[in-house]
Amino acid sequence: MTRKKYIYDFTEGDGKNKKLLGGKGANLCEMTQIGLPVPPGFVITTEACLKYFDEGQKLPKGLMEEVRHHLEALEKKTGKGFGSGTNPLLVSVRSGSALSMPGMMDTILNLGLNDETAQALARQTNNERFVYDAYRRFLQLYGKIALGVEDSHFDAVMHLCKKKAGVQLDTELQVEHLKVLAEDFKDVIQRKTGQEFSADVYQQLELAIEAVFGSWMGKRAIDYRREFNITPELANGTAVNIVSMVFGNMGETSATGVGFTRDPGTGENRIYGEYLINAQGEDVVAGIRTPKPIHELRKDMPKVYRELVNLRLTLEDHYREVQDFEFTIENGELYCLQTRNGKMNAWALVRTSMEMQNQGLITEEQALLRIKPEDLEQLLHPQIDPNVKLQALAVGIPASPGAATGKIVLDADRAEVQGREGEKILLVREETKPEDIHGFFAAQGILTSRGGKTSHAAVVARGIGKPCVAGCEALKINLAKRTITIGDTLFREGDTLTIDGSNGTIYPGDVPLVEPEFMSDLLKVLDEADHMSRLKVMANTDTPDGARKARKYGAQGIGLCRTERMFNATDRLPIMQRLIMAENPEDRRTAIEELLPFQKEDFKEIFRAMEGLPVTIRLLDPPIHEFLPRAEEVVQEIDQLKEFSRDLQGIMALPETIKLLDPDLHKYISLIELMNKGIVEIQEKGMIEQLLGQKIKLLGKIRALSEINPMLGHRGIRLGISYPEIYEMQIRAILEAAVEVTAEGLAVLPEIMIPQVCALNELKWAKVLVDEVHRKVAAQYQQAVPYKFGTMIEVVRACMRAGRLAEIADFFSFGTNDLTQSTFSFSREDAENRFLPLYERHKILEHNPFEELDEKSVGRLMEMTIEWGRKTKTDLKIGICGEHGGQPQAIYFCNKIGVNYVSCSPLRIPIARLAAAHAVLADKPVDKAL
Amino acid sequence: MTRKKYIYDFTEGDGKNKKLLGGKGANLCEMTQIGLPVPPGFVITTEACLKYFDEGQKLPKGLMEEVRHHLEALEKKTGKGFGSGTNPLLVSVRSGSALSMPGMMDTILNLGLNDETAQALARQTNNERFVYDAYRRFLQLYGKIALGVEDSHFDAVMHLCKKKAGVQLDTELQVEHLKVLAEDFKDVIQRKTGQEFSADVYQQLELAIEAVFGSWMGKRAIDYRREFNITPELANGTAVNIVSMVFGNMGETSATGVGFTRDPGTGENRIYGEYLINAQGEDVVAGIRTPKPIHELRKDMPKVYRELVNLRLTLEDHYREVQDFEFTIENGELYCLQTRNGKMNAWALVRTSMEMQNQGLITEEQALLRIKPEDLEQLLHPQIDPNVKLQALAVGIPASPGAATGKIVLDADRAEVQGREGEKILLVREETKPEDIHGFFAAQGILTSRGGKTSHAAVVARGIGKPCVAGCEALKINLAKRTITIGDTLFREGDTLTIDGSNGTIYPGDVPLVEPEFMSDLLKVLDEADHMSRLKVMANTDTPDGARKARKYGAQGIGLCRTERMFNATDRLPIMQRLIMAENPEDRRTAIEELLPFQKEDFKEIFRAMEGLPVTIRLLDPPIHEFLPRAEEVVQEIDQLKEFSRDLQGIMALPETIKLLDPDLHKYISLIELMNKGIVEIQEKGMIEQLLGQKIKLLGKIRALSEINPMLGHRGIRLGISYPEIYEMQIRAILEAAVEVTAEGLAVLPEIMIPQVCALNELKWAKVLVDEVHRKVAAQYQQAVPYKFGTMIEVVRACMRAGRLAEIADFFSFGTNDLTQSTFSFSREDAENRFLPLYERHKILEHNPFEELDEKSVGRLMEMTIEWGRKTKTDLKIGICGEHGGQPQAIYFCNKIGVNYVSCSPLRIPIARLAAAHAVLADKPVDKAL
Repeated sequence: MTRKKYIYDFTEGDGKNKKLLGGKGANLCEMTQIGLPVPPGFVITTEACLKYFDEGQKLPKGLMEEVRHHLEALEKKTGKGFGSGTNPLLVSVRSGSALSMPGMMDTILNLGLNDETAQALARQTNNERFVYDAYRRFLQLYGKIALGVEDSHFDAVMHLCKKKAGVQLDTELQVEHLKVLAEDFKDVIQRKTGQEFSADVYQQLELAIEAVFGSWMGKRAIDYRREFNITPELANGTAVNIVSMVFGNMGETSATGVGFTRDPGTGENRIYGEYLINAQGEDVVAGIRTPKPIHELRKDMPKVYRELVNLRLTLEDHYREVQDFEFTIENGELYCLQTRNGKMNAWALVRTSMEMQNQGLITEEQALLRIKPEDLEQLLHPQIDPNVKLQALAVGIPASPGAATGKIVLDADRAEVQGREGEKILLVREETKPEDIHGFFAAQGILTSRGGKTSHAAVVARGIGKPCVAGCEALKINLAKRTITIGDTLFREGDTLTIDGSNGTIYPGDVPLVEPEFMSDLLKVLDEADHMSRLKVMANTDTPDGARKARKYGAQGIGLCRTERMFNATDRLPIMQRLIMAENPEDRRTAIEELLPFQKEDFKEIFRAMEGLPVTIRLLDPPIHEFLPRAEEVVQEIDQLKEFSRDLQGIMALPETIKLLDPDLHKYISLIELMNKGIVEIQEKGMIEQLLGQKIKLLGKIRALSEINPMLGHRGIRLGISYPEIYEMQIRAILEAAVEVTAEGLAVLPEIMIPQVCALNELKWAKVLVDEVHRKVAAQYQQAVPYKFGTMIEVVRACMRAGRLAEIADFFSFGTNDLTQSTFSFSREDAENRFLPLYERHKILEHNPFEELDEKSVGRLMEMTIEWGRKTKTDLKIGICGEHGGQPQAIYFCNKIGVNYVSCSPLRIPIARLAAAHAVLADKPVDKAL
Repeated sequence: MTRKKYIYDFTEGDGKNKKLLGGKGANLCEMTQIGLPVPPGFVITTEACLKYFDEGQKLPKGLMEEVRHHLEALEKKTGKGFGSGTNPLLVSVRSGSALSMPGMMDTILNLGLNDETAQALARQTNNERFVYDAYRRFLQLYGKIALGVEDSHFDAVMHLCKKKAGVQLDTELQVEHLKVLAEDFKDVIQRKTGQEFSADVYQQLELAIEAVFGSWMGKRAIDYRREFNITPELANGTAVNIVSMVFGNMGETSATGVGFTRDPGTGENRIYGEYLINAQGEDVVAGIRTPKPIHELRKDMPKVYRELVNLRLTLEDHYREVQDFEFTIENGELYCLQTRNGKMNAWALVRTSMEMQNQGLITEEQALLRIKPEDLEQLLHPQIDPNVKLQALAVGIPASPGAATGKIVLDADRAEVQGREGEKILLVREETKPEDIHGFFAAQGILTSRGGKTSHAAVVARGIGKPCVAGCEALKINLAKRTITIGDTLFREGDTLTIDGSNGTIYPGDVPLVEPEFMSDLLKVLDEADHMSRLKVMANTDTPDGARKARKYGAQGIGLCRTERMFNATDRLPIMQRLIMAENPEDRRTAIEELLPFQKEDFKEIFRAMEGLPVTIRLLDPPIHEFLPRAEEVVQEIDQLKEFSRDLQGIMALPETIKLLDPDLHKYISLIELMNKGIVEIQEKGMIEQLLGQKIKLLGKIRALSEINPMLGHRGIRLGISYPEIYEMQIRAILEAAVEVTAEGLAVLPEIMIPQVCALNELKWAKVLVDEVHRKVAAQYQQAVPYKFGTMIEVVRACMRAGRLAEIADFFSFGTNDLTQSTFSFSREDAENRFLPLYERHKILEHNPFEELDEKSVGRLMEMTIEWGRKTKTDLKIGICGEHGGQPQAIYFCNKIGVNYVSCSPLRIPIARLAAAHAVLADKPVDKAL
């Protein structure tokens, strides 16, 4: 029986056997064996480590002979001698376990130094300072790790030395000081260990090996394994790597540098990097000398440059990923010390992935998997130039990505006026309301001091693709003075601000922005993704522009077309308000009839934009009080009117030049403001009283409609059943639009979706209504366009009743925003403004369930719903249109549980398309070489 | 082969075979066969009816011979002759199918009348008017049903006759008129059918039988069956019952009456009823003569009276339930025409059930099942005397049962003052707030114009057992004038009103109330119920009084002791508000320290009252803004203060006699009011400004804490984690109280329950805190009282995570109020005030899910929760403490799915105890005789 083999040379160890050789050791073996010029060395196995502990912390018998044997081979390879007084071989002794535990175990560099080898090295490098600095460092590290002398003793000596030398920094010490320090450190070792520092390099090595083994059971390593749940089976000891040291500071034919196999900024396929002649890695980091771009090495060292170019090819050929590597040139000899996958920005990542696929280096699947869906986000929004250093004023909630710069405007009306004049403006409000919608269209971006990621501002901004920072608590608005403060800084309306909706930061003034480009490589990536996906990707959008954008981004239809915002436009809101204020069915019906053509025109444009693709339209969802102003605003207006009424006499005496504005409800709000500025005259005295009466009635209505918990209130189908005229009008608008656009020769695929359904009878009620209107429209136009009928699944009870709802519904669409709210009993805005940050800090919840779908609860309900629904109707179409629909983690989950499509905001469509492909690939074995 | 038998005599038909004999026929057979003196008769089977239709609406062959055969037997039994001119036999011909279809098919009375038999009968009864009235009625009925002559023709003749006679009513017609009418009716028949009215009684009978069969397929009957979903299998034709007529108006030895086998008002075990000599059933109903109490029959007809007493015994012996029967005495012969289970009030029901059990007539199980749990409700609350007829002013939502009369008082402070003076008052508010709590204690009952069954007013009222009518929309309060209007009626503060919280009605002035008595029979019922139940019944209560009451009503512990109302008492609310307004941890801690002794004292008293039984205490649940006044109130106060500040000069000149009240926050509210009345003087001028500052700060806090959806907001454990001092104080108060009461020698079983839990880590967090405080208290007192630790299950996610929560929790308690809200996405108050009534009208939902547990959704979640929870911990204790916990249907369901206890308001405990027994009995076969 032969004795167990404890040591493998880098040329012989199995590069895949991390368990035996540790991660670093296996890697060094692999690099060596694929022909990279790794400095020679060998690995002591993890088995030796385990044996060491088995035998009561004694090195296995014969180990040191084996070490000596391999060291002799090393001497041969390097032409150096371990402990040699002329051409000394130095080695590093590094730990390396199967699982990476960065910084947790010990490493000793430059082992093999003693007074004699130091002198020899000094001669060789002609750099005494470097050698003695290395020597004193080695002494301290070796003293601490191998001999157990605490750092503090060395530090005290160093302190004294610097004091004597009259310097502050280690780097200011001269060679003489360092030589003295080496002597003093040896003294420390002798004093503290009772033994002289041994110049015997083999003894040094033996103690170092023992120390590395010992560090495996050190407190730091044990704590680390406990913290990261590394079980004993996974944690099977550490290997020890003994590698010959190479030096880039051996003179003008030596150098050190870092390289990328491709340009990590642009993805260009050429070597990229920098180097310093006669230098160490530290010198590059310290920034004392400026490194040269790598192509200059072609002149400096043509042979080595050729080797480097070959090295790049070897690396990519083997790793099939862009590599970030470190190299050292010692006396014209190239050594590659380390290589790892290179970090790139999204542009470079997409380009290199596609190019490597074209080169045949990787498969289509591998190329797709290499790009994380979230990475695409930076490609889709204008960005703040990452090369500019900026000081943020404050940070709010990143509510809609992208950066925007504009002049501060504090109300939507003014925003509209200035926007029309071509000004770039930023709408800044405490919070926004549906009636502010015209301000959104006019603004570059939106900034609010209240509300979270589902606040009105956030949802609208994402829907129309405008950057938004919400809930910025540092922002205070003084409407009276038309100023804002952010922290301590005061801005006036008209001053310029910049927001970054991707991370919530706010900057003063203009900031350079970088425009995104929709590069051809990205188009190719997404095209390949679509071919691979099982899930379809649809868009959440409710405007023709949004539809066109979604289509450009690759949406396969509209999964959620909300209809409520169609009532918020300036020309419709007054009608909607009249509808709400109507005191009898006729008045209500008149208002409805006025709304119909608007709504129909909206649908027609959307159908045209989405020609040939399904358009899923959700009937009115929010409680109708959302279409009225806030009670407090009206109270304030009433107060103003009362006061104004008293002062009317004075106002009546204003100059003749001023004209009266249209005294209708909506316009009057600005009338008051204008009046405050003294630029409006009142022609009719009774008008104030009349307005006051209207406002008081309005206030009464607002109070009558106000709800304690509007999220759980009178909305969705509940509203539909209460005011059937509204749903009827919407259904008619959809179906008439469908017939009319079909008549234009375009294919229209309307799908009608009912919100907030909790009971079968609600859905039946709606289906009867839709069928009835469908019959009427077909009769009127002598043509019928088929439609699909479905329900949102956003109420927990709907999940429980899925089996019955599927009797009526052609499709289900999960509204995971509301479903998450009711599953957690969290009102999102309340939660995100109050306890969710605390919950994340206290690790009560793993994540914000509104940002990441909670598979344990909402996901579980979704699974049940799908199971029960498909039991009734095997071909039931199932989608998700909550915000999670655009989030990769949720997309993987949806793919797994049998959802048919995800729907998300247009800007997230590319991300969703890639994620949908990842979802399929994650279930599929992919080439191991990846 | 013998021909099929189509007819059964009452003495031979199988009383259980309703399918063959119809319900009425089987019943008559049964009555006959148990020895009741039923008038003789026979049944033609439903098979004959089916055959009739099978053969194209022809009577089966031989049927009429069979009829003739049975009629002859009838003649023998009655000693009368069918068509006899001396002693005529008359019969009724009645339909009767297997399933009761009241009023849907036809009946002909007094068949056998013609001119000759009418004369004979007139001689016999010596009552020509009766006979000819019967005759003309028979002619019309027979003409219509058997011959198809429309009523209108007869009615026209009748109209003419009355005109001639110069009378308005049928009853005013004299014998002569009736005789003419009979002749005229015969003419109508001849004119309309073309044939003379047949004096042939057998022909009459044959046509009548055909007509009854025919009515089975009449439009009315078919519609009825469709309406009630009676399937063809269940609806298998009608039988025809032919019964000899008996007459109570044959002279002084004849009579008619109704009887109960026991007194339905008191349950007393003696015959009860009334009768009229020489009269028909109609006479009793018409109220022309006053019937005599039945015991007088003993004198009038001693033999018949004895027979009646025996009849009573026979009935109860057979039916084993109190019977309500009709009887007729014809010439000294007693006939029992009908018997059915007697309807009784709750008192009588309980008494008779217990007494019948004692008599051995029924088993314990049967006795319990006979009493519906809901019936007990009338035994538990003072009631409006049901014998007094009242005109209600308006109806609101019945929010807490019982009636209350008192003087209208419009605010809690005044209620407290007047209550202390011994006045009976009724607190009347738009809605109530926690700070009104002292007014609740002072009032007899509460009336509000807003809010539903979970409004603050309703919940508090039920908790403390005060009647409450909520959400009365007809009620308008004018606080300025201190008046209210209900509909059009104006009341001043101090006027008297009565409310009935059991049905929501409101009456002006005093109304006689009946006090409930907790009768010994009821105690026995409940005692037996407890022995039979598997579910324990616990109480929802949070006061020592409530605990004592609950115990008296048989609670086996407290299943839900809310802690929030303990902070609402007048002496604590200011501290609580100081806690909320605290600007630093020290101020907060000071307030907390002040609250601790109050809370501890509460718990001690409750522990004492519940000695030996578990007390489940829920830590603070509502959002803290509920402890602050409403923003609008404060805004109003601020306005008042501002105005007041301007007018201060004037006020300062008020007379000397007036004293200054304590200017602290709480008291100042009344200060303003008092000031308005001019009975307070301000000593210090700066006070107003100081108060104004405080109010503005308060308003700021209220706004900062206000939530969009408070039901889903910052409450329960979320609040606990945000302000750990509050939960820590509560836990300490519980555990210190437990140790101190244990030291008094009493057994204390505290259970600590965490509200609004949705995640395992929340529960872990709370458990760590409880354990820590427990250790500290044990160390401090040198004694440890064990406790149980559990969680509310009221968040959908908690259901989904039940398996994990059970790792930490000793018990689960379903909070089905909140769970229903989040499962349906219905905010209860919003829903009940808006769309739920509409949903019930439109039959969208079968029931209001807040009143009846929705087994299809909430129930399904509960089942999953129990399954998953018990998979982790087989002995997990599971309860329900939502309002459904006191509702029988939910209790049956809870019993079925393995819940261990239900918890409900003290007043519902008897109901729940009985329901818990019913739940077990429903699963168990019970003696069929029931």
